[in-house]
Amino acid sequence: MLSRNDGSVRFDVSVIGLGAMGTIMARAFLRQGKRVAVWNRSGDKADVLVAEGAHRCETAAAALEASPVAVLVLLDNDAVHAMLSMPGVEQALAQRTIVNYTTNSKEDSIALQDLVHRAGGHFVKGVIVAYPRNVGHCESYCIHAGDRDAFERHRDLLQILAGHALFLTWDDAHSLSTTLHAHLFAAMFTFYEAVSASSHLGMPAAEAARLISDVSRFFIADAIADAARRFDTGNFASDQARLDVHLSAFDYMAEALHKRGAEVPIFDVVCEVTRRARSMGYGSQDISAAVKAFAPEGAVQSMPPQAR
Amino acid sequence: MLSRNDGSVRFDVSVIGLGAMGTIMARAFLRQGKRVAVWNRSGDKADVLVAEGAHRCETAAAALEASPVAVLVLLDNDAVHAMLSMPGVEQALAQRTIVNYTTNSKEDSIALQDLVHRAGGHFVKGVIVAYPRNVGHCESYCIHAGDRDAFERHRDLLQILAGHALFLTWDDAHSLSTTLHAHLFAAMFTFYEAVSASSHLGMPAAEAARLISDVSRFFIADAIADAARRFDTGNFASDQARLDVHLSAFDYMAEALHKRGAEVPIFDVVCEVTRRARSMGYGSQDISAAVKAFAPEGAVQSMPPQAR
Repeated sequence: MLSRNDGSVRFDVSVIGLGAMGTIMARAFLRQGKRVAVWNRSGDKADVLVAEGAHRCETAAAALEASPVAVLVLLDNDAVHAMLSMPGVEQALAQRTIVNYTTNSKEDSIALQDLVHRAGGHFVKGVIVAYPRNVGHCESYCIHAGDRDAFERHRDLLQILAGHALFLTWDDAHSLSTTLHAHLFAAMFTFYEAVSASSHLGMPAAEAARLISDVSRFFIADAIADAARRFDTGNFASDQARLDVHLSAFDYMAEALHKRGAEVPIFDVVCEVTRRARSMGYGSQDISAAVKAFAPEGAVQSMPPQAR
Repeated sequence: MLSRNDGSVRFDVSVIGLGAMGTIMARAFLRQGKRVAVWNRSGDKADVLVAEGAHRCETAAAALEASPVAVLVLLDNDAVHAMLSMPGVEQALAQRTIVNYTTNSKEDSIALQDLVHRAGGHFVKGVIVAYPRNVGHCESYCIHAGDRDAFERHRDLLQILAGHALFLTWDDAHSLSTTLHAHLFAAMFTFYEAVSASSHLGMPAAEAARLISDVSRFFIADAIADAARRFDTGNFASDQARLDVHLSAFDYMAEALHKRGAEVPIFDVVCEVTRRARSMGYGSQDISAAVKAFAPEGAVQSMPPQAR
């Protein structure tokens, strides 16, 4: 142990696993002037990072020893266990923080945390909410759970990967990650749907895509923030436009789209849910009251009483 | 006519129709220091605006004569025709520009344009892409069609209502307005769906709403802008994450959501369309290639050849 305290911790962070995401994370650290040690099962993946200033470790254990914190980005949970059972790794975990960005389940993560704790280390699970192109972006987010103190010690470092680093309980991190991603991908798909429909309505897809992208940016961000405030306060008063007025417009739009042969299965669901919300008696409320028509019981239960 | 040239054009803009939207528009003009004349069928609606500096006209004809441009925001197309057939209105249209923000169809608009032209006036159809709270916002958009010269003469004025004023052909304005709004509302509904699902996954809806709203803002705007670039260039190369890798994650998320009893009809469509895209052979492409699975023929026809 003396040797470790004497000098083996020579780096700010170790990155273990140099697939596309691991390589981009290591590069983000390097660009912020961090001293970065790297390790990958197959050696050649480190070459490009070494050329950019990273230090290649010969073993996983050496990579863990090299820095107070190791970021793991491996193929899957099995690959994490394979790495952790390599020679010398268990001893190297003592007083180290593992931040695991490898995709796995909540149960997998809790089992890993136990394993790291038994070896005297700290464990943080991370989910980076970004495509590789936005790793290192100040507007990106990452979500963490596990050992809060360890997270806070390394928060500044982790915010190099994504400007906003959140820490939640295991349950909240799992819930948020699931519903958030469902929203992110569904919002992307509504865009694909609209662009696809545009060609049926006579506008070239590329032009429609550019215009819809530009025009939608502020509107969607504002509408979602407004709805979030309403869900928080339970105030669904219709001070902008009533739900039943929206429904009339939706019916008109759906007819125009179907008449021209556009397939809009997502917008069809929007119309259906809005119709259900009106039949539940929310016609005179704000459009965001449609939240109560997705899963009436659950959504209403967790909202303030005046929202019911 | 002499009298008009001598002094009846004493205002910068007239607002005809003082419902919620008309009142907000008139107020937006007043706040930018414009001289605003107003008219409404029932007089009392003008009171609050008069107190804020607007001039109340006694007749629709007087309101048209008062300014070079009149913004119309009436209940519906019938209300526009009723106003246009009032005493003196036809004569008052000469050399005036009508900008009609009243909701109507493309055919209704073209008929109105003919009517205004016959009276010697100019006609612009406008669609404001904003809830009342964002009228006058520099980041809001409005879409126009009709007489281009008249639009350009009054562009600066109209940009008081929405910072970005677009002018398109009749067909493009109709197509964009329909597909854009389908996208806007569907994106809002994916948020409602995610928030509703969160309560099934154990996170209070209000907290989930705040977090999803914050985390999604940049991600969605960036993902949509990236997809728009791909639709423009036809480059669906998978440099971020393959479509079939997304599908694995989608299946995992859908299972977690369904298992907990969350109703996610929109996300179910996302999974179904992604599966269709993979079966069409796009598994190794970028996720935005899913656009081709909505309405295969139409979307592909209007994209650059390399996108097919």
